[in-house]
Amino acid sequence: MNMLGIDVGATTIKVSVCSAPDILLTDFSLPTRAHEGPDAVLDQIHEGISQGLALCDTSPLGIGLGMPGTIDHHAGTVSWPPNLPGWGVRPLLRLLEDRWKLPVRIENDANCAALGEARFGAGRGHPSFLGVTLGTGIGAGIIVDGHIFHGTLGFAGELGHLSIDGEGALCKCGGQGCVEAYLGIEPFLRHARDTIGREGGGMLSSLVATTPEALTPKRIAEAARQGDPQSIGLFAWYARHLAMALASAINLLDLPVIILGGGIAGAGAPLFAPLQSELPQRVLAAHRDRIRVLPAERGNQAGMLGAASLFF
Amino acid sequence: MNMLGIDVGATTIKVSVCSAPDILLTDFSLPTRAHEGPDAVLDQIHEGISQGLALCDTSPLGIGLGMPGTIDHHAGTVSWPPNLPGWGVRPLLRLLEDRWKLPVRIENDANCAALGEARFGAGRGHPSFLGVTLGTGIGAGIIVDGHIFHGTLGFAGELGHLSIDGEGALCKCGGQGCVEAYLGIEPFLRHARDTIGREGGGMLSSLVATTPEALTPKRIAEAARQGDPQSIGLFAWYARHLAMALASAINLLDLPVIILGGGIAGAGAPLFAPLQSELPQRVLAAHRDRIRVLPAERGNQAGMLGAASLFF
Repeated sequence: MNMLGIDVGATTIKVSVCSAPDILLTDFSLPTRAHEGPDAVLDQIHEGISQGLALCDTSPLGIGLGMPGTIDHHAGTVSWPPNLPGWGVRPLLRLLEDRWKLPVRIENDANCAALGEARFGAGRGHPSFLGVTLGTGIGAGIIVDGHIFHGTLGFAGELGHLSIDGEGALCKCGGQGCVEAYLGIEPFLRHARDTIGREGGGMLSSLVATTPEALTPKRIAEAARQGDPQSIGLFAWYARHLAMALASAINLLDLPVIILGGGIAGAGAPLFAPLQSELPQRVLAAHRDRIRVLPAERGNQAGMLGAASLFF
Repeated sequence: MNMLGIDVGATTIKVSVCSAPDILLTDFSLPTRAHEGPDAVLDQIHEGISQGLALCDTSPLGIGLGMPGTIDHHAGTVSWPPNLPGWGVRPLLRLLEDRWKLPVRIENDANCAALGEARFGAGRGHPSFLGVTLGTGIGAGIIVDGHIFHGTLGFAGELGHLSIDGEGALCKCGGQGCVEAYLGIEPFLRHARDTIGREGGGMLSSLVATTPEALTPKRIAEAARQGDPQSIGLFAWYARHLAMALASAINLLDLPVIILGGGIAGAGAPLFAPLQSELPQRVLAAHRDRIRVLPAERGNQAGMLGAASLFF
């Protein structure tokens, strides 16, 4: 039995044709055309479904969609996706079911990425874990016994808005000291530019002095892997702050397996090594020997694979 | 159909005979005799069951126990309950099933208290909530769709070890800035004595100057209700720090209903009023209008009622 899994991102729509338990039969992508407005995006979603159905080798069980924005699981609406201008509130579930006469399931994109790792990636063998995405912001999907933990309305997993300093700086969300206000790409790069500019002498000093906007997490990670102490220190700083939030989440949820994906997780050892030494020190003794911090395995395929998994 | 629900505390064993959905038929208590060692405690548990079974008006469905310590749900063991000296690790499930030839379920006492509120108290009408106990320490039971959320091994709900300052003071658990290190009874009273001693002039100043060990949360709450600005300020401080931890938990779990029990929650308005104004400011906009902070309704009956509810 086949399932379509579709990940609607700001620039591309990724489409997968899968079958259980973890077989990706084929995949392709289309441009999202977000700048042409929501009707164009909807046309592209329909086009992706049409092409995907033509590639199924059996009658498809359903269509799973990973969407940005707020999903109302009862009403079937998707509201205000931040990267799809003009979208507003749309009854996406009904629009797709009416057109394609197939079951449709819609899920938050961070949850889909975690589910994709659960069924197709680093989560195999770990029924329950926290699937964390380190990117522009910090999000997470909570996977319990192979399924997404939703909370009351489906908003669970906002790890980025777990506070690591209740007296800390105001976050855009209104809270204080949210970990995303330290470790989102923008605040992390601001901290990195300040540190490099103030200390000088490292591999990235001249870059920061001449073209500070060219500094990226990837460049810091490369320098760290080449042994630049300043860049190693920057990822140790990142890991330390991430450990503060993860320790709280592990203590509250009793989920000691963490799977890290997203652009910043691509840094590899400079991030994982300090995190693996810092995190066990901050959790309750019951968890200390059970902590596992694993890199995500499916990269930017995880979303579309998780969307297909909504029908597994 | 009847169920026995038993709450094993440090000083008393509380026994209830219940029937679904929320009927307490009768209850009584026995001394725990913890100082006489674990065999005496076990005898008292058996005695409570014997007396409870004699009070059932139908054949009992099972025996539920709320226990302190670490519960291994697979092995049926209870390990190292902090207030039952010498207990070690005991196969309590098997011991009780062998003796009484009835189904037995054992659950952490904080989880039982939350479940008792869910079925018999403030949680009725709220399928999902965080049931928080503010006492010597700070614990919580996470209730989702009427059931306890366990996490991987049953340790979920350790709200007291959610950090509100990742650079803060070392907690006994090894973490830094755990909310329990601020709001457990001992650290709260230390803060209160320091503040009153330093500022002077309030209703409790002479008490603190002469017999500082006589200061209790209850006395501070009484003074606050009588309008003492210093005592009002102390509970505002408590509420502000509690809000830091609760906001993180709400953002992560999407559970905007909080039920507060335990000794310190008995303070009432001096605690609830500042908490209800502080908490909505710290959570994501999606939760702001959905926050409910409710007092627990079943007091120290909640544990035995929740234990009986393990069979509902």
